[in-house]
Amino acid sequence: MSVKLINDRLLRALRRQPVDMTPVWIMRQAGRYLPEYRATRKQAGDFMTLCKTPELACKVTLQPLQRFNLDAAILFSDILTIPDAMGLGLRVVENQGPQFAHPVQSREDIQKLSAPDIDTDLRYVMDAVRLIKRELGNKAPLIGFAGSPWTIATYMIEGGSSKQFSRAKGMLYEQPALAHRLLEVLSQSIIDYLNGQIEAGVDVVMIFDSWGGILSHDAYKEFSLSYMEQIVDGLDTGDGENNVPVILFTKGGGLWVEAMAKSGCDALGVDWTVDIGAVRKRLGGRVALQGNLDTAVLYSDPMMIRKEVAKVLASYGEGSGHVFNLGHGIHPDIDPDNVAALVDAVHELSEPFHSGG
Amino acid sequence: MSVKLINDRLLRALRRQPVDMTPVWIMRQAGRYLPEYRATRKQAGDFMTLCKTPELACKVTLQPLQRFNLDAAILFSDILTIPDAMGLGLRVVENQGPQFAHPVQSREDIQKLSAPDIDTDLRYVMDAVRLIKRELGNKAPLIGFAGSPWTIATYMIEGGSSKQFSRAKGMLYEQPALAHRLLEVLSQSIIDYLNGQIEAGVDVVMIFDSWGGILSHDAYKEFSLSYMEQIVDGLDTGDGENNVPVILFTKGGGLWVEAMAKSGCDALGVDWTVDIGAVRKRLGGRVALQGNLDTAVLYSDPMMIRKEVAKVLASYGEGSGHVFNLGHGIHPDIDPDNVAALVDAVHELSEPFHSGG
Repeated sequence: MSVKLINDRLLRALRRQPVDMTPVWIMRQAGRYLPEYRATRKQAGDFMTLCKTPELACKVTLQPLQRFNLDAAILFSDILTIPDAMGLGLRVVENQGPQFAHPVQSREDIQKLSAPDIDTDLRYVMDAVRLIKRELGNKAPLIGFAGSPWTIATYMIEGGSSKQFSRAKGMLYEQPALAHRLLEVLSQSIIDYLNGQIEAGVDVVMIFDSWGGILSHDAYKEFSLSYMEQIVDGLDTGDGENNVPVILFTKGGGLWVEAMAKSGCDALGVDWTVDIGAVRKRLGGRVALQGNLDTAVLYSDPMMIRKEVAKVLASYGEGSGHVFNLGHGIHPDIDPDNVAALVDAVHELSEPFHSGG
Repeated sequence: MSVKLINDRLLRALRRQPVDMTPVWIMRQAGRYLPEYRATRKQAGDFMTLCKTPELACKVTLQPLQRFNLDAAILFSDILTIPDAMGLGLRVVENQGPQFAHPVQSREDIQKLSAPDIDTDLRYVMDAVRLIKRELGNKAPLIGFAGSPWTIATYMIEGGSSKQFSRAKGMLYEQPALAHRLLEVLSQSIIDYLNGQIEAGVDVVMIFDSWGGILSHDAYKEFSLSYMEQIVDGLDTGDGENNVPVILFTKGGGLWVEAMAKSGCDALGVDWTVDIGAVRKRLGGRVALQGNLDTAVLYSDPMMIRKEVAKVLASYGEGSGHVFNLGHGIHPDIDPDNVAALVDAVHELSEPFHSGG
C-alpha cells in the first residue's frame, strides 16, 4: 500500500473521491468463460490444486487483466478454503459445485471445530497474494475476499450446494445456539483470514454473502449481518489514504441495504434486482455502491450491452462512489468478446458522469 | 358463489373486511409431506395422472382440510398444465421436477405456439374444480391458480427447472421481441384458463410468479409484471360481494410491491424475506397481504412455531387484510404435526388482533 498505483480508480471510487471514469471489474472474472483459464485449470488437474498452488492461482488471477481493461484484480481462490482448512475435506466437482467429505452434522461436529491457523493451514492463500502483488506491480489494485459466516455455514451443514437449504435454515430454528456457535467460529476465522490477506498486501477486501438473501428479514440480521458487522469491526484496515476499503455483498439483500450500510463497510455490492440509483438515494451517499448489471445481458451483443450499461450508469447518476460490476458472478458460457464490450462501454460511457476526475 | 360459505374468513380478509381470526392456508398444502397424499400419488402412478384425473385431484385437494383447520382449499394442479396442453409434453419426475419433451428452442417453436382450447385440452382442470366444489360444499372457499407468463416461459425455454435461467433470461436480451411473443400467447392462455376456473366455481384466483424475482427491476416490469397486469385486467371476476379476489405472488418481489399493488389485484403474496408490517405500511392498505412465515420454521417444534407465528401476526398488526401463509411452498420433509401446530397457532394467536370480527 505504500506504492502509488497507476490505476487507482477502484480505490478512489470506494472512497467516494473523484475519478475520471467509473472503475469496473467482474465477479468471477478469472473463470471458466476464459479459454486460458480452462487451460490452466486442466494443467492443475483439479480446482483445489489450482487454488492451493500460488503460481497457478497467480496466473489465473492475472489472465483477465491481460485481456480486458479491468480496474482491479481479484485473488483467485474459493469461499470454502476456511472449512477446508478446518478439516472438512473440500472437493469442487465440475458442474456440480463444492462437496465436503465431512459436513457438520451433529452438535459434536460443531463443538470440535476451531479456527484454522492462517499462517500454516491457509498459508497458500497468503503466498498467492504476495506473488500476485509482485507480478501485478503497481498497475492496479488487488481485491482479497472471504465468504460470509452464514454463507460458508450453509455449505458446511448441507455438505455442498443446496436448493432449499433445509438443513442449514432448519438449524437456525431447531438449534439456534448451535448455529451461533458455528457462526462465531467462522467469524473469528474470517477476521484472521482477511487480516492475513491485508498483511500479505491486498488493497481491498470483499465479503461475499451469497446466501444471506434466502433468510427471513429477522434471521438475516441475527444470523448473517451481525456476524459480518463483527468481521468489519475486527479488520485491521488502517486509516486515511492508506486504508483498505471493505465491500459487503449480500446477494438478494436489496431490502436490507440500510442495515448493511451501518455495518462500518465502505461499499455495498448490490445485485441486479435493485435499481442502483434508488439504493443510492435510500442510503444518502453513506457508502459507495458496486454493481449491478444482470449477467444475462452478456448473452446478447455489444449493442445491447452498451444500452444496458448506459442504463446502470444513468441510474447511479453523476459523481463518484460507483464501482461497475455484474450483479453476480459471470457464467461459464459467456463469450469473452462480450466482456470486452462491457468493460469498454463502462469506461467510455461513464466519462460524462465524472467532471472532477 | 351464490351459496354463502360457512367459513368465509379468507374472502373477508382478501376484501379487507373484519374477521374473527386471521385465515390461514398453506402453499402446497396438498403435497408430499402428507402420507395420504403419497398414497394417492402412488395409486395414480405419476404426477400428471394425478392432475389429469379429476377424482384423484379432488381427493388430494381435500386431504389437508380433513387433517387441519385450514380456511381454504386450493385446487390440486400444476403451473405447467398450459404448456403441456400446448403440446410440449410435460413429465414431472420425483425429486427432479418438471421436464418437457419438447422445449421451445427456436423462433419457429415459439411462432407456432397457440393458446390451448380450455374446454377440451384443459377440461380436466375444470372438471376437477366442479368436482371439488361439489365435495367441498359450502365449508370453505376454493382457490384456483395459474403460473405467471414469465414463470411458465422459463420452464418452456429451459426445458425444466433451472439454476441460472441462462437461456430464458438470455432470450430477454438477445431476442426481446420473440420473448414478448411467447409471453403474449401465455397471457392470453392464462386469461382463458383462469376465467374457465372461475366459471367452474373457484372463489379466489392466485397467480404464482415463482421466478419474477430473478429478473432485474426493469426486466421484471417489462417481462413479468406487465403481463400479470394484462391478466388481472382480463379476468371476469365479477363485482361487489360476489367478486372473485385475485392474489398476485412474485417470490423475491419484495422490492417491487408498490408496482405490483397497482396491477388491480386484491392481494399480494409476500415471501419470508420481507417484514410484512413494513410492506403493509409501504402500501398504505391498498391491498390485502398474504404470507409470510419461513417454511424452515416448520423444521423446529410447536413452541418455536408459535413464537414465529406470533412475530408475523404482530408485524402485520391489528385489523383485517392479512391471510396467513408460508413465504413459499411447504417442503416434502416437514412433519404434518408441525403444520397442525402452525394452523392452530395462527387462529389462536390472531384473535386479539381482530376486534370487529
